[in-house]
Amino acid sequence: MKALDNLEEFRRYRERMNSRILESGNLEIKRFFALDTRAYERGALDTKTKELLGLVASTVLRCNDCITYHVIRCVQESVSQAEFFEALNVALIVGGSITIPHLRRAVEVFEECKQKQEKGQSIDL
Amino acid sequence: MKALDNLEEFRRYRERMNSRILESGNLEIKRFFALDTRAYERGALDTKTKELLGLVASTVLRCNDCITYHVIRCVQESVSQAEFFEALNVALIVGGSITIPHLRRAVEVFEECKQKQEKGQSIDL
Amino acid sequence: MKALDNLEEFRRYRERMNSRILESGNLEIKRFFALDTRAYERGALDTKTKELLGLVASTVLRCNDCITYHVIRCVQESVSQAEFFEALNVALIVGGSITIPHLRRAVEVFEECKQKQEKGQSIDL
Amino acid sequence: MKALDNLEEFRRYRERMNSRILESGNLEIKRFFALDTRAYERGALDTKTKELLGLVASTVLRCNDCITYHVIRCVQESVSQAEFFEALNVALIVGGSITIPHLRRAVEVFEECKQKQEKGQSIDL
Amino acid sequence: MKALDNLEEFRRYRERMNSRILESGNLEIKRFFALDTRAYERGALDTKTKELLGLVASTVLRCNDCITYHVIRCVQESVSQAEFFEALNVALIVGGSITIPHLRRAVEVFEECKQKQEKGQSIDL
Amino acid sequence: MKALDNLEEFRRYRERMNSRILESGNLEIKRFFALDTRAYERGALDTKTKELLGLVASTVLRCNDCITYHVIRCVQESVSQAEFFEALNVALIVGGSITIPHLRRAVEVFEECKQKQEKGQSIDL
Repeated sequence: MKALDNLEEFRRYRERMNSRILESGNLEIKRFFALDTRAYERGALDTKTKELLGLVASTVLRCNDCITYHVIRCVQESVSQAEFFEALNVALIVGGSITIPHLRRAVEVFEECKQKQEKGQSIDL
Repeated sequence: MKALDNLEEFRRYRERMNSRILESGNLEIKRFFALDTRAYERGALDTKTKELLGLVASTVLRCNDCITYHVIRCVQESVSQAEFFEALNVALIVGGSITIPHLRRAVEVFEECKQKQEKGQSIDL
Repeated sequence: MKALDNLEEFRRYRERMNSRILESGNLEIKRFFALDTRAYERGALDTKTKELLGLVASTVLRCNDCITYHVIRCVQESVSQAEFFEALNVALIVGGSITIPHLRRAVEVFEECKQKQEKGQSIDL
Repeated sequence: MKALDNLEEFRRYRERMNSRILESGNLEIKRFFALDTRAYERGALDTKTKELLGLVASTVLRCNDCITYHVIRCVQESVSQAEFFEALNVALIVGGSITIPHLRRAVEVFEECKQKQEKGQSIDL
Repeated sequence: MKALDNLEEFRRYRERMNSRILESGNLEIKRFFALDTRAYERGALDTKTKELLGLVASTVLRCNDCITYHVIRCVQESVSQAEFFEALNVALIVGGSITIPHLRRAVEVFEECKQKQEKGQSIDL
Repeated sequence: MKALDNLEEFRRYRERMNSRILESGNLEIKRFFALDTRAYERGALDTKTKELLGLVASTVLRCNDCITYHVIRCVQESVSQAEFFEALNVALIVGGSITIPHLRRAVEVFEECKQKQEKGQSIDL
């Protein structure tokens, strides 16, 4: 369960540093963070589709922290294993073998989230 | 209608050069092209969702030719204007203002495809 | 004077497509565009420094349209030739020889803007 | 004080491996390293501005080691908190949300450097 | 000998997660992995040249896991120190100073592989 | 023969703008250009191998001007069609389908260079 232990650490780090950034007095960055949250809210496209878009964008741009975030959100939105791997396959084809280390990370987080869910444990962000 | 005139030129160029590549005798490249086609076929995720994934991946990686291709495929799969702009907004938030020139291209191709459809003209690839 | 003739075409295209994007009804994209404008306004850092930051960011990310925009803004903000080349040199060192085609573009636009200014012609965006 | 403890480790690793690279006998790499140092020295632009250019370039290209280096240099050059966040905001707007994990790192290093300075501790590289 | 200890950990992680990915039931990803292996097999170009191509591609795209893999393969294919540094120099010139943290990693892995070989220890993947 | 007509135009543009850059008085950029030339000269690795490294680096980083340059150099160094496609296949696998538009360009330039050679025409840069 290493990745989600790390994740708990990451979650706290992310929360703490986001607070520091939002308290810095820079209003534009604050507004950017608000727009970032809005981008994944239900609209003409549902949240699940938008989270898959975020997952694929994060994978082809190869950002492990962003991938971790979107994998958790995908599990929360009930993305199935088959859907998850098909989305990753699009990222792999578009982005190439350079994305494979990030596929490993995505799969690791996905499986541990699923295990947590089965045990009735929280996967809140 | 400049973009689609260019597109017609691009379509012919793309077809011609893909043939040259596939006839080169390199079997691995040929297999990659087959996998590329398969990645967007209906599976656990429908084709429309996969084309939106391809569009967002192409936009954050900033490849106009790939964007052009996926915009046409999105229109063929009946992606609405609101869905289209929400997908582009995810790409814009993830990828930043550096993607804006590619948003312009995506919107131009989208609008011209819609106009062609209204006139009963083909938007085949 | 080819680049600036192209630029005039680009300026019109940019203006027209930005209007199409802003009229699309997607509020988040509209807000992103507003934040984008705000990012380069005078604050603790002056506008000239911020435009140099935008120029270097655009060059290492290799986007010709973004480079063109920031070069014109740099000339408007009275960036000298020596300052301009030192900023490009930072981009070249950080981003490598893959940025050289974009250096060529930046220098071409810079020189033509300077010529226009000498002739008393407008370099408005 | 975790980031700067890590930084101390990173500083030693960086010094050790740079030595190994420079002692390898490859003259071109040695010359590149010399040019890299020169790029941030005072010229038509002052060192502070050049370090801000290096910080923004490193952030949009998303390299934590490079960000760490330029944040420390920015603090040494007396970049204020407001100036620092405005530079990061340019990087965030240009590079998008994919840069946010690197903003967190930049802010963490910045704050710990400031704390070290207040305590009269060294932030030498 | 830290990098190769980490490498042993990475090797196990890589093997375990690759198995999970290949057992997921997604046939396209499986085929991609097969093509990935094929790309470096002897053909018109020998394996050593192909591994150098993989090393340079991984370095300019800045992926430490991919660099680690190709460095080990390069040592297995008897790439000399002079050849290794010349290939890294091409990557440094093309990709810029942003690749330097990855050069450090590459050199660290290279030297530890050479030491293992001298001691008659395995550097199998 | 469109690509090489464009190439002739590009060759002149490249030569003219490089002169402008080298005459600008910025010594660091001048030294970078010298290092860039040196990187592909015969050393422990022969020039042909280095040009293949440059081609693959340019393709995964997706720069058409850089690809054009290295394709011409590869043909001058007598890279065979089979070798050329195997190198492109490594780039395609590492960099993914987003590189395909650049493969088309590479193949177009390669074929036209070969035709020029058969007709006894110059492919000098």
